[in-house]
Amino acid sequence: LPTTVTDFTERELIARIQARLPPPPDWLLVGIGDDAAVVEPARNRLEVLTADGLVEGVHFDRGFTPPHAIGHRALAVNLSDLAAMGAEPRLALLSLALPPALSCGDFDEMIAGLAALASRQRLHIVGGNLTRSPGPLMIDLTATGSVKRRDVLTRAGARPGDEIYVSGSIGAAAAGLQMLRAKTANTEVEICTRRYLYPEPRVRLGLLLARNRAPSACMDLSDGLADAVHQVAAASGVGMRIDREALPIEPCARDWFDARGSDPVTEAITGGDDYELLFTIRPAYRGRLRAASRHVDVPITRIGVCTKDPAVVIRRRSGDSSSDTPIPRGFRHFA
Amino acid sequence: LPTTVTDFTERELIARIQARLPPPPDWLLVGIGDDAAVVEPARNRLEVLTADGLVEGVHFDRGFTPPHAIGHRALAVNLSDLAAMGAEPRLALLSLALPPALSCGDFDEMIAGLAALASRQRLHIVGGNLTRSPGPLMIDLTATGSVKRRDVLTRAGARPGDEIYVSGSIGAAAAGLQMLRAKTANTEVEICTRRYLYPEPRVRLGLLLARNRAPSACMDLSDGLADAVHQVAAASGVGMRIDREALPIEPCARDWFDARGSDPVTEAITGGDDYELLFTIRPAYRGRLRAASRHVDVPITRIGVCTKDPAVVIRRRSGDSSSDTPIPRGFRHFA
Repeated sequence: LPTTVTDFTERELIARIQARLPPPPDWLLVGIGDDAAVVEPARNRLEVLTADGLVEGVHFDRGFTPPHAIGHRALAVNLSDLAAMGAEPRLALLSLALPPALSCGDFDEMIAGLAALASRQRLHIVGGNLTRSPGPLMIDLTATGSVKRRDVLTRAGARPGDEIYVSGSIGAAAAGLQMLRAKTANTEVEICTRRYLYPEPRVRLGLLLARNRAPSACMDLSDGLADAVHQVAAASGVGMRIDREALPIEPCARDWFDARGSDPVTEAITGGDDYELLFTIRPAYRGRLRAASRHVDVPITRIGVCTKDPAVVIRRRSGDSSSDTPIPRGFRHFA
Repeated sequence: LPTTVTDFTERELIARIQARLPPPPDWLLVGIGDDAAVVEPARNRLEVLTADGLVEGVHFDRGFTPPHAIGHRALAVNLSDLAAMGAEPRLALLSLALPPALSCGDFDEMIAGLAALASRQRLHIVGGNLTRSPGPLMIDLTATGSVKRRDVLTRAGARPGDEIYVSGSIGAAAAGLQMLRAKTANTEVEICTRRYLYPEPRVRLGLLLARNRAPSACMDLSDGLADAVHQVAAASGVGMRIDREALPIEPCARDWFDARGSDPVTEAITGGDDYELLFTIRPAYRGRLRAASRHVDVPITRIGVCTKDPAVVIRRRSGDSSSDTPIPRGFRHFA
C-alpha cells in the first residue's frame, strides 16, 4: 500500500516541506517552528500583500492536474498579483488542507512544484499551516513583495488616449483546459495544456515596467481579458476600445476553438487562467515600454486605446468600415 | 427561501465584508479592490507573520458553533500567535471557501464576529480571497503584527532555573467543547462553552511582557499545555517540572471532568483551544512580570520551573513526599 499523509505527524510533513526549501535569507529572523515568522522589512520599500487559493473541484481537477502543477499554479496566481503591482516577490505563507487519502508522493510532488517556482522567483516560504480536510484538497497562499513608493502600479491611473497593451498571448490556458478535459493528447496541444498547467507569472516584466514608470495602470488577466479591461476602465474612470484583429490569440488555441465551431475571440477574451499583464501607457511613454521590453523575452502587443467615452467595446474592421460591439461585463455569479 | 451566498456575485460578497470594516488606517495605501494591498511598513519594527485556518468538521462543528463564533475563533487563533511573539496586531488577509448552501445571514454573522474582534484588537483586513467550496466551510487567515527587534519573544530562550508561568486558566475550552457536544445547557456551563466559542487572545499581555522584556521564552497554548511545555523545553534545550497542584484549572471544567470520572489534570493539560500564554521568566525578573501584569486583568500563575535535566515532568506532592511523572509528548498523528 502506498503511504498517505496520515502516516505522518504534522511535524514530519512540515519537515518534508522544509527539506525542499533553500537556506533562509538573512532578513528572515525567525522561520518555521515558532508561533510566527519574524522578518526584517525591506528598506525604503512599501509592502505588497496578496492572498489566493486553489480548491480541488473548483480550480483544478486532480484527474488531469498533476500534483506538481497544482503546487506551481497555487503560487503562480499569487506571483501574478504581485507582478501586476510592480512588486518584487519576497515571502509566502502556505496553508494546506489535505484529504487523508492524499499519497505522500503526491504531497511531495505538490511541494516540489511550489518550491521550484518559489526558488526561481526568489520567494521564500516562511511559515504556514497544515490541516486535514474532510473534503477537497485546498492550497491557500499569502504572498508579499516589496516596491518603491513611486513605482507602485495600480488599476486606477489610465487616462483617455493611453494605449492598451497585453503581454504574451491569450486563450491558450482556456483551450488547454478544454483539451485536458477532452483527454486529447499530441505534441500540438502541449503548448496549450502546458500554459494551463504551468502558467508563467510575469514578475520580471511587472518589475521592469514599474521601475521605468511606464504604465499608467496595470492588472493581471486571472479572470480573462474581458474582465480585466472592465476592471481597469472602471477603476480609472475611462472607457476602452479593443482592436479585435490585434488580439494576440495563441495559434494552437485559435485552431482548437475554430475546429469546435466556437469563436476564438470570444473564447480567448472570456477564458481565464491567462496570467498575462494588461497595462496602459500614454503614447509619449512608448520609449519607456520599449526599454523595459528589451529585457524580457515575452512579446508585448498593443490591443487598443483608452477613451473618454466610458463604454468598453471591441472594434471589428472590415475594409474601410468598422463596427464597435460592447464587451459584456463578466457577471460571475458566486456559485 | 432564505438567500444563500450563491445569490450574490463575488463582488457583492466582498462589499458586504467591506461594509463591516472600519475606515482604512493611514498606512494602508491600496486596499481591497486592486490586485494586491499596498501598505507602509511600521517604522523601526520587525514584521511578524502567521497563518492559521479553521476547517468545518475538523476545527468546528456548525451544529453547535454559531457563525459569529466561527469568525471570532478564526481570527483569535492568529492573534494568539502574534501575542506569543510579543507583536502588536496590524493587518490580516482573509481567505474563505464557502459551501453554496451557506445562508447569507450566516455569512454576515461570521464576518461580524471576525470584524468585531479585529476592531477591538486594532487589526485591519486589507485583502483576501473568496471562493466556493464543494465541501466544508474553510476560513483561512494570514495576520501580521509589528514588534521592536529587542522585544521579540520566541520559544527558544528558557534557561534552567527560569520559572514557568501561564496566563488565565486551563481546561475550560476542552470542557466547553464536550458540553456543546453533549448539548448540556445551563448558566454554569456557560463559562466553559463561552471559553471554547470565544477564546480571548492575550494580545495585551504579550505586548506588555515583550515591552518589559520579562520572558526568556513564550508560546501560546493552542494545542494544550502539555504540548507547549514540550515545545518550549525542546526549543530552549531545557527540561521542565510542572507543579500539579499549581495548575490553574478552571473550576467549572474541574467539576465537569470529575463528574465524568476523568482526571481533570490530564484533561486540562492535553485539551487544546486554551489560547493562553505559557512563558518562562528568570527569578530576578519577577518585578518586571509584576509590572506587566498590573495592566491586564487576567490572572498569571507560576506552575513550575525549568531544569537542567531535559525531562519534562509533572510533580505531585503528598505530605512531605513528591513524585515526578513524565508528561507524554503529544504524538499528534496528522489524521
